[in-house]
Amino acid sequence: MRQDHLITATQLSRADIETVLDQAAEIAADPQAWAESHFGSVLALCFFEPSTRTKMSFDTAMKRLGGTTTDMGTVESSSVKKGESLADTVRVIEGYADAIVLRHPSEGSAQMASEFVDVPVINAGDGAGQHPSQTLLDLYTIRENAGLDDLSIGIMGDLKYGRTVHSLADALTNFDIRQHFISPESLRLPRNVRYDLHEAGAQVREHTELDGVLPELDVLYVTRIQRERFPDESEYRKIAGEYQIDADLLSEAKENLTVMHPLPRVDEIAPDVDKTTHAKYFEQAHNGLPVRMALLDSLLGGDDK
Amino acid sequence: MRQDHLITATQLSRADIETVLDQAAEIAADPQAWAESHFGSVLALCFFEPSTRTKMSFDTAMKRLGGTTTDMGTVESSSVKKGESLADTVRVIEGYADAIVLRHPSEGSAQMASEFVDVPVINAGDGAGQHPSQTLLDLYTIRENAGLDDLSIGIMGDLKYGRTVHSLADALTNFDIRQHFISPESLRLPRNVRYDLHEAGAQVREHTELDGVLPELDVLYVTRIQRERFPDESEYRKIAGEYQIDADLLSEAKENLTVMHPLPRVDEIAPDVDKTTHAKYFEQAHNGLPVRMALLDSLLGGDDK
Amino acid sequence: MRQDHLITATQLSRADIETVLDQAAEIAADPQAWAESHFGSVLALCFFEPSTRTKMSFDTAMKRLGGTTTDMGTVESSSVKKGESLADTVRVIEGYADAIVLRHPSEGSAQMASEFVDVPVINAGDGAGQHPSQTLLDLYTIRENAGLDDLSIGIMGDLKYGRTVHSLADALTNFDIRQHFISPESLRLPRNVRYDLHEAGAQVREHTELDGVLPELDVLYVTRIQRERFPDESEYRKIAGEYQIDADLLSEAKENLTVMHPLPRVDEIAPDVDKTTHAKYFEQAHNGLPVRMALLDSLLGGDDK
Repeated sequence: MRQDHLITATQLSRADIETVLDQAAEIAADPQAWAESHFGSVLALCFFEPSTRTKMSFDTAMKRLGGTTTDMGTVESSSVKKGESLADTVRVIEGYADAIVLRHPSEGSAQMASEFVDVPVINAGDGAGQHPSQTLLDLYTIRENAGLDDLSIGIMGDLKYGRTVHSLADALTNFDIRQHFISPESLRLPRNVRYDLHEAGAQVREHTELDGVLPELDVLYVTRIQRERFPDESEYRKIAGEYQIDADLLSEAKENLTVMHPLPRVDEIAPDVDKTTHAKYFEQAHNGLPVRMALLDSLLGGDDK
Repeated sequence: MRQDHLITATQLSRADIETVLDQAAEIAADPQAWAESHFGSVLALCFFEPSTRTKMSFDTAMKRLGGTTTDMGTVESSSVKKGESLADTVRVIEGYADAIVLRHPSEGSAQMASEFVDVPVINAGDGAGQHPSQTLLDLYTIRENAGLDDLSIGIMGDLKYGRTVHSLADALTNFDIRQHFISPESLRLPRNVRYDLHEAGAQVREHTELDGVLPELDVLYVTRIQRERFPDESEYRKIAGEYQIDADLLSEAKENLTVMHPLPRVDEIAPDVDKTTHAKYFEQAHNGLPVRMALLDSLLGGDDK
Repeated sequence: MRQDHLITATQLSRADIETVLDQAAEIAADPQAWAESHFGSVLALCFFEPSTRTKMSFDTAMKRLGGTTTDMGTVESSSVKKGESLADTVRVIEGYADAIVLRHPSEGSAQMASEFVDVPVINAGDGAGQHPSQTLLDLYTIRENAGLDDLSIGIMGDLKYGRTVHSLADALTNFDIRQHFISPESLRLPRNVRYDLHEAGAQVREHTELDGVLPELDVLYVTRIQRERFPDESEYRKIAGEYQIDADLLSEAKENLTVMHPLPRVDEIAPDVDKTTHAKYFEQAHNGLPVRMALLDSLLGGDDK
């Protein structure tokens, strides 16, 4: 990947993706070889919304490359509270850091920010938009467990608001992968995402129930259905209950089914799944480290320092 | 100490304690010798409750060993807000870090967390439970100022809810130390702690007033009585006022009495004590640095790459 | 500068200032030469009020010197919430860090803190008091763009509460600079600041409008007029509107006028100014890095191990 910024998964070609994943695999095999590779470089962490795993994995990825990070802190503890625009905030921060990781509630914010600064911007989630580094670690996890060709993947839960889903679905069109989307009618994939998939020639089917499609899946990617999307608590409980999995249900699945989840989970995956060989969601979270190390190394390039 | 986790003071034998304190003394004498000893290691700071000195001293301890830290941030800025379980949070974080420091409002949380992960977990306070690294720095301070044998120590204030007190009392049973507990009736040491001390053969006496026992003490360990423990403000003021010390009162004490406090203090120790030779509470806080460096070095062991 | 603490701009002589600025210029020219100069040193960041650029620039300045930082966190996540005094907080923290950067809402707090500790304290803003490291980067920016002698500088906006203004005005008296203060009557420079300037023999004039004085200015330093200073929203809007600049208005200015702002800005400088050659406020923010590196290097001195 020789790009200035990482804003959306759509900007990544199959070759781009494979380059990052190959390097991540190299890093995972021998992390010590990279322990001083970006000494002296500084990564700014600008999270306008809560985050644990994305922030901590970028933080530790930079540090395990020998670099350091600087944290903008919460919105409450920053100048944003005083009414500063995002464009001004990033223009100031580019003076202190060699790259910027940005999470922001507004769709399009990362693209906008990238137009104002000269250092690389990595989109770590822009509202209901994209979250491309999550997609790269998802792809890495799929490749490690099931390969990336001639697969059936089911993506289940909140497909309407889930930005990890939108980024992943886009990226999967680069590979020979059949995509099954499983959700209640009210949380279907948005029309524009479906259109893009159609344009890209993706093999897509939509379902309202997991039952029929489960036996043919190689990968099941579960996402959280958020309480706040429903006006009514009982409606939420009813819907959410229908898109939960447990060990019993997985007895219908292929023996080598890989179950993934971007985390945090609440009740979507019962704890009894954790002990099965299907459970790869913690491994998936851990893959954030080598994948983000590879990504940072690529974006900081020879220009670091 | 060759243990995987540090959860309670009770798990520490006299030999364990002395090993850590000896190493802390070595580190204090020549910190530069350790400045690169854990280069490349990462410590995760997971504080589910406010902290200044515990968090900052673990943070700087790791950095002065040449390592780095990664901070989960406040609960408000993390995925915990989204309903993630503690077991899930630590299972994700173990993928990024080589050890985890955990403070959590629930008693038993550190023990539970340690059962889910392979990296060392250090309990930095679990509700009204334990805070063993505080105990180690307390013991270090007592040893530096008064030795650890044939001593009389008074422990005063909130003995019911104070986790530093429970950890310390447990650990003191390893030494030839007479323990005097001074508190209002309503804030006595909990029955289970008294039982454990009795079982361990500790020399324990309880008092409701400091006056009678002060002259025989070598060490006086003062703790904060918290306003929120009392339904009534006036009741709080009355009680708290009776367990405060000042320079005048200390004229009744042994000349070499060591006064300690886990800090933060509010009104328990008057500022005029700060200038006396008795005052060791800032030294005590500073001892957190070499003690936690020794502790981290021990737990990270030869596995830290 | 051979001083223990940096509390006010008034403590800085012309020679002190020039020493820091000269070193900052050296650092800016070759930052790599300093990348390991303070390895092993720790800077404590104690911000009792929100900050983005001051905190991040001190954080990255320390890291680009090869050192590390430790962050007290927000007041809500620290022991301050439990009622600890500032004197106690800094006495604890001096045990962990080699220097302390302090921002606090109370005027005089940095001076007070410096009297309790042996490590250097840097005042990063004490209420409506001083913010001397901001002054140093302001002077650096003025010197880079316009030199520091035989100049006319206009300082506009909230001159009553703006601590950056008070520090800057003090420091400018060391140079042959004419100071024009432009503000509404209600936000005039406080009497004590005017008195100090008079005593220092400064060349000072006050204005309520920019129009008459703009053509003779070499530097225009704009500050934010804060909503919360006005009891009435409409009064605020009316006043604030009169002290805003845009590209059109600047057509009346000297061709090489330098426009500065301590940031964050809200509406004081229209975005169309950003593209003009006058706009130096982002450069000014970026100058915080080399200036604070020089300052830290000076205060940490040869004592940093």
